[in-house]
Amino acid sequence: MVIIIMFSALMIGAKTYDLPNYVLAVIHWLDCGITLFFLIEISIRFLGEERKRDFFKSGWNLFDTLIVTVSLIPADGSSVAIVGRLIRIFRVLRMVSIIPELRMLLNSLLRALPQLGYVVMLMFIIFYIYAAIGTTFYADINEVLWGDIAISMLTLFRVMTFEDWTDVMYEAMEVHWWAWIYFLTFIFFTAFAFLNMVIGIVVNAMHEEHEKTIAQTCENDALQETVSLESLQRDIQELKVLILKKQSAD
Amino acid sequence: MVIIIMFSALMIGAKTYDLPNYVLAVIHWLDCGITLFFLIEISIRFLGEERKRDFFKSGWNLFDTLIVTVSLIPADGSSVAIVGRLIRIFRVLRMVSIIPELRMLLNSLLRALPQLGYVVMLMFIIFYIYAAIGTTFYADINEVLWGDIAISMLTLFRVMTFEDWTDVMYEAMEVHWWAWIYFLTFIFFTAFAFLNMVIGIVVNAMHEEHEKTIAQTCENDALQETVSLESLQRDIQELKVLILKKQSAD
Amino acid sequence: MVIIIMFSALMIGAKTYDLPNYVLAVIHWLDCGITLFFLIEISIRFLGEERKRDFFKSGWNLFDTLIVTVSLIPADGSSVAIVGRLIRIFRVLRMVSIIPELRMLLNSLLRALPQLGYVVMLMFIIFYIYAAIGTTFYADINEVLWGDIAISMLTLFRVMTFEDWTDVMYEAMEVHWWAWIYFLTFIFFTAFAFLNMVIGIVVNAMHEEHEKTIAQTCENDALQETVSLESLQRDIQELKVLILKKQSAD
Amino acid sequence: MVIIIMFSALMIGAKTYDLPNYVLAVIHWLDCGITLFFLIEISIRFLGEERKRDFFKSGWNLFDTLIVTVSLIPADGSSVAIVGRLIRIFRVLRMVSIIPELRMLLNSLLRALPQLGYVVMLMFIIFYIYAAIGTTFYADINEVLWGDIAISMLTLFRVMTFEDWTDVMYEAMEVHWWAWIYFLTFIFFTAFAFLNMVIGIVVNAMHEEHEKTIAQTCENDALQETVSLESLQRDIQELKVLILKKQSAD
Repeated sequence: MVIIIMFSALMIGAKTYDLPNYVLAVIHWLDCGITLFFLIEISIRFLGEERKRDFFKSGWNLFDTLIVTVSLIPADGSSVAIVGRLIRIFRVLRMVSIIPELRMLLNSLLRALPQLGYVVMLMFIIFYIYAAIGTTFYADINEVLWGDIAISMLTLFRVMTFEDWTDVMYEAMEVHWWAWIYFLTFIFFTAFAFLNMVIGIVVNAMHEEHEKTIAQTCENDALQETVSLESLQRDIQELKVLILKKQSAD
Repeated sequence: MVIIIMFSALMIGAKTYDLPNYVLAVIHWLDCGITLFFLIEISIRFLGEERKRDFFKSGWNLFDTLIVTVSLIPADGSSVAIVGRLIRIFRVLRMVSIIPELRMLLNSLLRALPQLGYVVMLMFIIFYIYAAIGTTFYADINEVLWGDIAISMLTLFRVMTFEDWTDVMYEAMEVHWWAWIYFLTFIFFTAFAFLNMVIGIVVNAMHEEHEKTIAQTCENDALQETVSLESLQRDIQELKVLILKKQSAD
Repeated sequence: MVIIIMFSALMIGAKTYDLPNYVLAVIHWLDCGITLFFLIEISIRFLGEERKRDFFKSGWNLFDTLIVTVSLIPADGSSVAIVGRLIRIFRVLRMVSIIPELRMLLNSLLRALPQLGYVVMLMFIIFYIYAAIGTTFYADINEVLWGDIAISMLTLFRVMTFEDWTDVMYEAMEVHWWAWIYFLTFIFFTAFAFLNMVIGIVVNAMHEEHEKTIAQTCENDALQETVSLESLQRDIQELKVLILKKQSAD
Repeated sequence: MVIIIMFSALMIGAKTYDLPNYVLAVIHWLDCGITLFFLIEISIRFLGEERKRDFFKSGWNLFDTLIVTVSLIPADGSSVAIVGRLIRIFRVLRMVSIIPELRMLLNSLLRALPQLGYVVMLMFIIFYIYAAIGTTFYADINEVLWGDIAISMLTLFRVMTFEDWTDVMYEAMEVHWWAWIYFLTFIFFTAFAFLNMVIGIVVNAMHEEHEKTIAQTCENDALQETVSLESLQRDIQELKVLILKKQSAD
């Protein structure tokens, strides 16, 4: 299964090279074969499922079905064909749905995503404010970089990745000498927010680790000790009973 | 509320595009409406507050009032208008004051700031010394980059972000062959100080996490165990009393 | 030993400079001497080993033998000589096999490698999909950057390191306006996967640290407490025996 | 004290600007005054020290004395003057020796340095091997970047910081198609070694934190519990004594 997927991925890669006609023909037939294979595979899985409804409850099954269905579209038309070809590329992603370790990894990545939600929102606000200021002042200097608010945000993203950001800054500083304050504060804010996000995730991951550890140790301690203390208590109870018996016997 | 703020933010963004006149008119009226809405909202909040003094004690309230007040300045004059327009941009920040999660996030960011204080001071000293050395030697080579100590510090910040730093270095090396020592040590020092800062924050966050954990486990242990041990002690005390009673009875 | 290796490393470095003929002659003879020295050293180690088989079981021994053997190839021929010279460079790696701290460090690096396996696989899938899309759409724009799928992956690696990535993007945006989505999502995916990998390693390292800590504390607790509790239990047992004896005596 | 140092630092910065003559004269006199002030300050500290030998045992005192002494060199000669002026710059570092928090920070930075020792050594070996290979193959392509082994190492450092590394690679790939393997493996090795170093430091810092925590909790546990258990044991001992007394009384 994995081999077939890898083979189909390699074929997509091979198509990007200039190849003689007969190889293209072979690839075309192989392509049809793979599409057929996937169609059969998904049918078997669908028929194998006891309750047909549950099959479509799993996101991965839906994903597989969609890709196989779209692959059936003939790759002849111009605009539809490109969509079909793109979908074929996503077949590589089926590798993820088959290898369980990759599935787990992707799930853990997706689970970490919502944690970032509010930080991304805060960074978006920072970007928006700076983009609005930037467009107000620098639009006359360089229309390409600061033309409207969307382009400005793209330019700011570029500044955040330190990609030729000094060129952008020096250009702005020629007209407004205080432009360095704008760029330096932006870099500080975004770098700081980003740093905080990363540290937040690390500390969060650690916290969960801790919780587990505590739960474990508590359990261990509880198991180990309460037994001993309980047995002690039982011993002492027995002692008391003995003494009381003796007293009543006297 | 959040929708109104987002709408006003979108309007600021929309203004940066070339728009037909009638749309600009609509935006102008909407802008007045939003300003009015904010004015009413802040008035209601002010009147709703029982003790008028407490209202101004909260930083967020002061911030809101300031932005609303400045928004009232008519956007006609040239130099004042730009200030008014800028303040309107900061309205987006009101989103932070309304959504509590963002407020908490910002607070936690601000709380992390003082930790960095001394590291920033140390980095400033490193920057200052290197800028002074750089200006002494390289001012004759490139006036634009090493003209005076402020420009040199900006150039060094650029070197720290690895932005075309080799161009700066090769230029300096043509005159002073030892320039590579200057740049490499600078990169090492700043990278090392930065790294240490990040690690410091992570370890600090972890330390706090630990303290909490310990406090928790200690409490847990204390609660769980002292009860048992105390009950044991009570049992033994009772035993002693019983034996003593018997002795005195004999 | 370390000195000889460093000396041979320095000699390799010295050869890259323009040197007068007599120095080259000296270096040639020194080179022969060092080769001889290594040959003798490895022979002694081989003869010193009791069971000859075990000698070749250690990867480091095999590595040493290979390098010494290839060094014996005369450096006269053109194509073979370059291989011989290259192998001489790897002599520096023998430093690692001699200094135990470096050996440990390298071992720990290699041990961390398999952890990355699946993340690298996931990143390769991301690269592959984006490279296939990129080749499909941008091959006509810039043959040098997006010619076939291998070149596209190299270009994407460049984008991941933020090296002049805006140039690549702006070029693509001239034809396809949506190109910024392609590049930004790619940067987000790779940065996020990379970040997750780093955090994964840190948390993993922490987990192991924790496990050790727990094992230690559990042992400590166990040792310290069970003794006390056991002695208590013994005391109580003795008490019981005493009382029982007395009862039977009565 | 801090103010004087900051003032002297500002003066060094001020000198880099074009200033009218009378300001320069004022600065010159202020400079003399500050030198005198530092001389007096260090003398007082030296005289205040009871045992003169201990004074020079502290690195900071030696550092202060050296800077003050060299400041006395007249700033007239051309080559000596520059040294004197440079030393004046290092006066800013005296800020570190006076503010205790900065002193602690610098000490902690220096303490973290030896941990890095072996990683730096490993990275140097990687750099050396790659520089030797690079010089062998690419020296003919670009003399400026790969001329000899020292220049090659500088070029490799540039590649490590991702500074226009693709230009270097594309140039090399025109002659040797496999150059991308050379550059990609180099980036992977250095990035991986660097990452490992950072993670090593973090885990190390955590380990120390843990040790402290364990020591603390153990102490806490020991204090809290052994008291209780001991008192229990004492109680039981008393019981035994009572019973034994009674037995002997019978």
